[in-house]
Amino acid sequence: MHIDRRRLERSIEELGKIGETPRGGLTRLALTDEDKRGRDWMVARMGEAGLRVTIDQMGNIFGQRPGAEALPPVMMGSHVDSVPTGGKYDGQLGVLCALEAIRTLNDHGIRTRHPVTLVIFTNEEGARFQPAMLASGVLAGKIPLEDAYNARDKDGIRLLDELERIGYLGPEPCVPRPMRAYLELHIEQGPRLEEEGLAVGVVEGIVAISWSRLTIQGVQDHAGPTPMRIRHDALVAAAAVVTGVRRIARELGGDVVTTVGNLTVSPNIVNAIPGKVTLSIDVRDPRDETLDRALPRLDWLVREACRHEGVTYELEHYWRVPFTPFDRTVVAAVERAARATGARYRRILSGAGHDAQYMAAIGPAGMIFVPSRGGRSHCEEEFTAMDDIEQGANTLFRAALDLAGGG
Amino acid sequence: MHIDRRRLERSIEELGKIGETPRGGLTRLALTDEDKRGRDWMVARMGEAGLRVTIDQMGNIFGQRPGAEALPPVMMGSHVDSVPTGGKYDGQLGVLCALEAIRTLNDHGIRTRHPVTLVIFTNEEGARFQPAMLASGVLAGKIPLEDAYNARDKDGIRLLDELERIGYLGPEPCVPRPMRAYLELHIEQGPRLEEEGLAVGVVEGIVAISWSRLTIQGVQDHAGPTPMRIRHDALVAAAAVVTGVRRIARELGGDVVTTVGNLTVSPNIVNAIPGKVTLSIDVRDPRDETLDRALPRLDWLVREACRHEGVTYELEHYWRVPFTPFDRTVVAAVERAARATGARYRRILSGAGHDAQYMAAIGPAGMIFVPSRGGRSHCEEEFTAMDDIEQGANTLFRAALDLAGGG
Repeated sequence: MHIDRRRLERSIEELGKIGETPRGGLTRLALTDEDKRGRDWMVARMGEAGLRVTIDQMGNIFGQRPGAEALPPVMMGSHVDSVPTGGKYDGQLGVLCALEAIRTLNDHGIRTRHPVTLVIFTNEEGARFQPAMLASGVLAGKIPLEDAYNARDKDGIRLLDELERIGYLGPEPCVPRPMRAYLELHIEQGPRLEEEGLAVGVVEGIVAISWSRLTIQGVQDHAGPTPMRIRHDALVAAAAVVTGVRRIARELGGDVVTTVGNLTVSPNIVNAIPGKVTLSIDVRDPRDETLDRALPRLDWLVREACRHEGVTYELEHYWRVPFTPFDRTVVAAVERAARATGARYRRILSGAGHDAQYMAAIGPAGMIFVPSRGGRSHCEEEFTAMDDIEQGANTLFRAALDLAGGG
Repeated sequence: MHIDRRRLERSIEELGKIGETPRGGLTRLALTDEDKRGRDWMVARMGEAGLRVTIDQMGNIFGQRPGAEALPPVMMGSHVDSVPTGGKYDGQLGVLCALEAIRTLNDHGIRTRHPVTLVIFTNEEGARFQPAMLASGVLAGKIPLEDAYNARDKDGIRLLDELERIGYLGPEPCVPRPMRAYLELHIEQGPRLEEEGLAVGVVEGIVAISWSRLTIQGVQDHAGPTPMRIRHDALVAAAAVVTGVRRIARELGGDVVTTVGNLTVSPNIVNAIPGKVTLSIDVRDPRDETLDRALPRLDWLVREACRHEGVTYELEHYWRVPFTPFDRTVVAAVERAARATGARYRRILSGAGHDAQYMAAIGPAGMIFVPSRGGRSHCEEEFTAMDDIEQGANTLFRAALDLAGGG
């Protein structure tokens, strides 16, 4: 038994049209009109596949295929929101492979012991509302529902109002659910599978992640008549931080990655000395201890950079997720499925956060990676070859069948 | 004879209400609704003072007080637009002191030989439409009218459309005009007058200015799974440029100032490696030769920073104004006026560009500075004491009377 490659390919093309950018990427930010259209398309396909569709208080969508017994379901899914000018694989590939796995169960009239549930999580990316993985975080009981509802986008629009506006504020409580397992197929977003010529990654866990926010307050002044000797330039201090954040990764070595992805200057005009800069610092490593070593270095770096320029600052380490190991039985099931599929695979860690991270807190979870060309993602050039997608989808199908008890 | 301090103070308060920020600063960007209201207020005051008001093709406002003979006028003025969250003195103080000088001529029924004309220039700041001093540049024949009309703000709105929308697209040709002299009172925007306890600066000229624009193209990618070894981060290269621009000022020494005031990151989210950064570089010095030495250093700096990070770039040195010496007879008249006023004064250079810079290209021009507290400007904290303003306004009045032939 195997999935229908051409049917899956058509689904990828169709859903990829919703929010498509002129250069072939995707802009489908959470709870926008594009996201609503993507959700509506998915709900229609889920109905066609005979799933019972329900929506919870965070707009998470569930489509249940009954099992032979009243047991907790095997859940499969991912998200359909994207970053701005992102790609067509991040998130929606996992949702569509899960849909294809269910369609394949239908094709063969298979009745599994456990129900099988397709799930689509709200606002995984964190591009519009922070933090990322907001809705799986609420579902796992890690983020209060009220906090999530009150998250605001850069224009001050509240998440709750947008949920209501697009018609996805559902009645089901967003709370931990009993489950047999949670499986998520996703693109690797790194170069390793491609470099080693592999089609599938059996994901053993997700690296530890720390997010910090730095606000530097300098003295806004005119760029012309203000002598260098009296300047307190917030951007000069910020530049030293950006350089230093890169240096921390070099000094710690290993697999640690450090990124300043967001930096905003005020008033941001040619002839004014920047009075204020805000920036983000993202640090990740497989080992929690590495983050414990990185953050004090960051504190020191920021203090010295700001002292040197004579500016004040506020530094908040506002989000931290520890290393998340996936469930051994689920990882083993994924590995068996990859082997049975005949896919060239390896065990691997995820460098990106995923909804599976929060799901692992409430039940046995695991992930399947497929390669990203050039290791690239969160960009319009994001690409995974159909041959690899097919192997990944078959691995997902077999692992779900195995765990749901129908193989 | 002297100006009416209390009347001037009231005018400063009234015009300062239009576009006032909650913290007592000013946001009155060129050709916005606030700018229109500021202009309307000025036109009403000019009418009350008996001036004949005309508007030119660039929205520059002229208010003429007839002279005894048909001679070229003494022009006085500045601008009423501001930077975002700027102050209440930059620009409008020069316009209001010129208005006060004319009101004082009226008070004493003085008939000057030359006419006296109050002028308000459009878009001096360059905060909304680039470059700065756009309308005096057109008037001086240095910027083509078509280029100015097609200048667009950050939302893509065209200057010509905004001129029309607010009702300040006038019929008068915006071309060089014969003039006896151009006088502009302005805040120093630097610390020198205050440091030396002086009330008035007799401005001898304006420093040379160079503006450059740098676009860095890196590789946008996910901040998590992308190993440090394959990154091409546009912001890391930009940070090296910001640091290097500061270093160039230190190396060249003297009065040179260098500023990166504008820096924009794309896609600018926490978990994406910046794919693109644009930034501005502003370099100024009293001597043109210093700029000739600074720009090749900047070229080298950018090349090395981008080579090191493996990113591509485009660097344009798109605007350059040479050192502008003011007319010796006008400078002498200003100095006589300062002495007659009894003001403590010094000769000084301007570190900021002003409309007087372009006016100097078409006739005899000069400027009067008053102190800026803490040297600060282009910020809400901008402040000049009323005692200093009074001395500056009296200096302007006397210099205008002297040059117009009526003293």
